[in-house]
Amino acid sequence: MKRSTLFKKIKISPPQILTMTFLVAILFGTILLYLPISTVEPISWIDALFTATSATTVTGLVVVSTGNDFTMFGQSVIMVLMQVGGLGLMTFAILIVLLLGKKIGLRGRILIQQSFNQYSLGGMIRLVQVLLFFAFGIELLATAILAVRWVPEYGWTYGLFTSAFHAVSAFNNAGFSLWDDSLSGYVGDPTVNILITLLFISGGIGFTVLYDLWKTRNFKQLSLHSKVMLTGTLAVNLIAMLFLFVSEYGNMETIGALPLGDKLWASYFQAVTPRTAGFNSIDIGSMETGSIVLISLLMFIGAGSASTGSGIKLTTFLVIILVTTSYLKGKKEAVIFNRAIPSHLLERSLAIVFISMAAVFAGILILSYTEQAPFEWIIFEAFSAFGTVGLSMGLTGDLSTIGKFVIMVLMFIGRVGPVTLAFALARQHREQISHPKGDIFTG
Amino acid sequence: MKRSTLFKKIKISPPQILTMTFLVAILFGTILLYLPISTVEPISWIDALFTATSATTVTGLVVVSTGNDFTMFGQSVIMVLMQVGGLGLMTFAILIVLLLGKKIGLRGRILIQQSFNQYSLGGMIRLVQVLLFFAFGIELLATAILAVRWVPEYGWTYGLFTSAFHAVSAFNNAGFSLWDDSLSGYVGDPTVNILITLLFISGGIGFTVLYDLWKTRNFKQLSLHSKVMLTGTLAVNLIAMLFLFVSEYGNMETIGALPLGDKLWASYFQAVTPRTAGFNSIDIGSMETGSIVLISLLMFIGAGSASTGSGIKLTTFLVIILVTTSYLKGKKEAVIFNRAIPSHLLERSLAIVFISMAAVFAGILILSYTEQAPFEWIIFEAFSAFGTVGLSMGLTGDLSTIGKFVIMVLMFIGRVGPVTLAFALARQHREQISHPKGDIFTG
Ligand SMILES: [K+]
Ligand SMILES: [K+]
Repeated sequence: MKRSTLFKKIKISPPQILTMTFLVAILFGTILLYLPISTVEPISWIDALFTATSATTVTGLVVVSTGNDFTMFGQSVIMVLMQVGGLGLMTFAILIVLLLGKKIGLRGRILIQQSFNQYSLGGMIRLVQVLLFFAFGIELLATAILAVRWVPEYGWTYGLFTSAFHAVSAFNNAGFSLWDDSLSGYVGDPTVNILITLLFISGGIGFTVLYDLWKTRNFKQLSLHSKVMLTGTLAVNLIAMLFLFVSEYGNMETIGALPLGDKLWASYFQAVTPRTAGFNSIDIGSMETGSIVLISLLMFIGAGSASTGSGIKLTTFLVIILVTTSYLKGKKEAVIFNRAIPSHLLERSLAIVFISMAAVFAGILILSYTEQAPFEWIIFEAFSAFGTVGLSMGLTGDLSTIGKFVIMVLMFIGRVGPVTLAFALARQHREQISHPKGDIFTG
Repeated sequence: MKRSTLFKKIKISPPQILTMTFLVAILFGTILLYLPISTVEPISWIDALFTATSATTVTGLVVVSTGNDFTMFGQSVIMVLMQVGGLGLMTFAILIVLLLGKKIGLRGRILIQQSFNQYSLGGMIRLVQVLLFFAFGIELLATAILAVRWVPEYGWTYGLFTSAFHAVSAFNNAGFSLWDDSLSGYVGDPTVNILITLLFISGGIGFTVLYDLWKTRNFKQLSLHSKVMLTGTLAVNLIAMLFLFVSEYGNMETIGALPLGDKLWASYFQAVTPRTAGFNSIDIGSMETGSIVLISLLMFIGAGSASTGSGIKLTTFLVIILVTTSYLKGKKEAVIFNRAIPSHLLERSLAIVFISMAAVFAGILILSYTEQAPFEWIIFEAFSAFGTVGLSMGLTGDLSTIGKFVIMVLMFIGRVGPVTLAFALARQHREQISHPKGDIFTG
């Protein structure tokens, strides 16, 4: 009895492996970025740590200029860290957390098997190969297309590197850019707008959905998860685009002065990027407070499960909306695409949202003591870090040391996933005793 | 068939009765407060409407000075409206929503019967008599005690009236005061501090709990609901008091300059008042941003069910914490005081929190366009209105016309209860078809 307890204590669970992998990647990244070869002028340890955390968690918040303060070697390190943080989690989600994860159990395994039509470990490993092949293929293609645009502008070496950097950054939803004003220089450029957004939308919708689409090519035959993600993404993006277009229409510091076509492009871009790409083509700090509030919500919702994005995930948000509306209508079950939502999904969604809110709330609370900045800057920064989005109203560069650590912790929690992290930290004990049910008044 | 449909359409549900009762009370109040006899100088229709809404929803946000702009007649109207809004909802909760409410059904009836040991309609009506007797008794006693303090200071007529006004306002958690600086003049006065807080804590904990305590006088034999409310209230108040004491300790504009005893009194007072009394003994606008963030959370959580308070309710908040922690620990059910939380409570809690957040979020969004004020003022005002708390950083007096309507709607939703209101508005249709369960990825 004692022995098995000891074994259990030593055994590392999949959530713990995931958490540690990220920590190790960040540590290596920090050391590499601190080397003289990485920077034009020496940077502090904490700035190296911050940059490595931001890159590995695919956030994109920066305390030193990616384009001006890092050498091409340093920029390459950042590129690799984004790739590890973005693709790594997707691979992990498939290979370890979902396949071997005890917490996920049979249910999760059945779910992943249904999504991929794979029933064996061998099939799963092939699946990861497909994923990597697929991801690198997309990034290579995108690099080529961007090169057509940027090699004539910047020459072969820098033009190609810039194209590759932004392709990797976009597909992994990292939001790092070699320009200090992100993509503001290309606010009305269709090639850049369409390609970059296509990259981060496909990275953010999740590999399971992409794979499903590629195999099926027929909406009706898609898995429930894919249907929910596709319609949900379309709906949220459309609503956000319309809202931002109306909200910023007369704002001369953002899109007010642009011609109608560019206004629409900018609204589209700014509507899709908070979930969770983090590029910007207009100045965030000059936006209307209402737009800031909406973008904060979008950053909190985030992207799809097992994707290069973070946040509570679109499906979690939709489950909560569905359960609420069906409860109010007096239905006995919440239904979507003719399928009822099982109760374990409800519990999981509730746990995710609650821990996420608690994390962001704690972050805002601490920052409100340590930072001297308008309150909306603090709120925005906390949501951006948690959603690993990387948009900022301007606080990042002025963060205090404690503030930097708060943002790093939020980025880490956001990327690893609040529930995964909680599983990694919590001591599990399964009770077998059943308790009689007790009722209380609520609301 | 057609006939019964017609009947169903005409029939008014308990949530609809409750909603309409509040609307009628507000309408009458508005007309009375607009009369020349009510005010020193004429006020606008919208300010009369705002004051009536604020009084009936027991919020306490004011656009005109209660003490200086209203005559004693006007102040008496406000007193009656607070009484109707505070006691009315408690009575309603017992008589109609819980007893006859179809939505609540057998479950709710069993719950209320367990709490009160009443099994017949006759018993219920007696219960309401007890409630009213109880409430008026407490208010009368409190008036007498406050009169000892205030009659020597203000003379018989105004001293007695002031005592009665504040007793009614406190027990009903209304937060109206005849002084423009609320109770700041009595920041260190033990009589006022203890009595006023005892009043609004007992009003806010819910009549079911008070009745249970009075009957049982033994913690172990209390109902589950009472146990949860008592320990939860104690825990939340203690944590909030400690937090505010530390946060404001050095703030010279709030408690920094006070002697230690008064510092503790002020922290205690400001910790218990956001749920949902709304008096203040220190200047809210001068508090630390961190304190503001915490108070916003407390205002959102609010008081107990079937009480004179509002908010999502403490039990709703605790259910969500319990379900989250038990999910993370891998337990198959959430347990409190050896009782498992049934799944219908989980659904209800989720619905309450989601609609409440959506309402506050929408309010903040609109106010961010219509008001010219610091963002934290807007956030604070929205949470205060929804929780019918009535604290303000200073925005209320400067509200635009649209802003006033937004705050009125939030107060109304907060008091009637987001779920009750949604039930009143939603068309109910019970489906009998069962759907196969479908799984999706979340988080
Ligand atoms: K990002
Ligand atoms: K109040």
